Amino acid sequence: MKKKIKKVNAAILIIGNEILSGRTQDKNVAFISNWLNLKCGITVNEVRIIPDDEKIIVQNILLLSKKFNYVFTTGGIGPTHDDITAKSIAKAFKVKYEYHKEAFLILEKYYGKKKFNDGRKKMAKMPRGAKLIYNPSSAAPGFMTKNVLSLPGVPSILNSMIENSKKYLVKGLKIHSKTLNLYTVESNISKKLGLIQKKYKKFVDIGSYPFFRLGKIGVAIVTRSNSIQKLYNVNKELKKLAKEKKIKILKI
Amino acid sequence: MKKKIKKVNAAILIIGNEILSGRTQDKNVAFISNWLNLKCGITVNEVRIIPDDEKIIVQNILLLSKKFNYVFTTGGIGPTHDDITAKSIAKAFKVKYEYHKEAFLILEKYYGKKKFNDGRKKMAKMPRGAKLIYNPSSAAPGFMTKNVLSLPGVPSILNSMIENSKKYLVKGLKIHSKTLNLYTVESNISKKLGLIQKKYKKFVDIGSYPFFRLGKIGVAIVTRSNSIQKLYNVNKELKKLAKEKKIKILKI
Repeated sequence: MKKKIKKVNAAILIIGNEILSGRTQDKNVAFISNWLNLKCGITVNEVRIIPDDEKIIVQNILLLSKKFNYVFTTGGIGPTHDDITAKSIAKAFKVKYEYHKEAFLILEKYYGKKKFNDGRKKMAKMPRGAKLIYNPSSAAPGFMTKNVLSLPGVPSILNSMIENSKKYLVKGLKIHSKTLNLYTVESNISKKLGLIQKKYKKFVDIGSYPFFRLGKIGVAIVTRSNSIQKLYNVNKELKKLAKEKKIKILKI
Repeated sequence: MKKKIKKVNAAILIIGNEILSGRTQDKNVAFISNWLNLKCGITVNEVRIIPDDEKIIVQNILLLSKKFNYVFTTGGIGPTHDDITAKSIAKAFKVKYEYHKEAFLILEKYYGKKKFNDGRKKMAKMPRGAKLIYNPSSAAPGFMTKNVLSLPGVPSILNSMIENSKKYLVKGLKIHSKTLNLYTVESNISKKLGLIQKKYKKFVDIGSYPFFRLGKIGVAIVTRSNSIQKLYNVNKELKKLAKEKKIKILKI
């Protein structure tokens, strides 16, 4: 991983009719975002889910790759007719869509020359100049084109290979996070919470999320910051607020 | 529900740092998309997940409400400082952000005058002219502003109230769907599958999705169309292909 700079951001582009139609529950957004956050100090600022449509993929790749430091795509890099991610990225960046020599050799070795048919060969076709993201579970590599990293849609395969994209990323400053679970309702603390957020506006991001646990209602107060000290100070104020309002804190 | 027109589409705008950061797994996309598809004949063409940031919400509301027949937003309509969906939509459409009389009365009745504090009152503030989407589980209503329907982020509450948004929607033609589960790998059928898709390009959308079941690998072929007849014809060809290749079909 390269040297640290302050703020590094990314977008995730989920390509696939099966996610848009609701047939398949996406699991990649939460996984990639958590991984980027915890392992690379990179914040995901936008996610889009779009259909398997070349024109739409091209538009989104161009727009998101300009707007964010990195774009992670998932889906559409398999062997079938609806797998058009690589071709569309090549089109977006106006580079050739062709066999990647190393990817071709990896796949040929994996399947054996006899069983290396056209569908499988397609998985070695990438935008010219793409760098490989190795795949330890099913061989077919992901790839990076400029600042766009393309991974498969199947979560178990994606999860197995994401570490191999780390070497291409510039690391950002770690974002620390604390969660305080309060047995109360949001509207009981919303006013004071708003004042605390105002006070720490520049340094700490405070989120408030209702939860249900064993029949009881609560609010998870999630605080996030680059500064451990500021995070500590905010949580001290939150605990003081809980004490004043006689709110029980859930310890987990 | 109003009269049918041919193709009706929608976008979903998920508003919330907790989804973007990966802390919370989104479940609303799949639920809303399936519901729109099955109950209203409406296709979701794009999903975006964005942070709790007024400027970004305004931009996306303006863009998506122009591009699609409907926009569904989730999240950011609670009582805390990070709940800024209603205010941002008012800003986007340049209408006042004010108490909605009926929403105010509903919430006042629900909490009782004594416990109806500022945080709770905030949930009655909406863009002027908003139509209510009633909430049978926790009272605070969703609302529709122009073609934008705003629902809460908590899935159980969203699920309980989505039927109440139906009356505001124009129904599209039902999209029929069939799934054929084949015990094979994608690359074994990708060529023929591509040819079948080409033949039915205008009428049927064919998707191919690997699955794992009890240690066996398979491919789910999902076909979608407005025409039951065309769907039947495609599936006949798919079964023929399976027979030729001696592929076992999984019956579920």
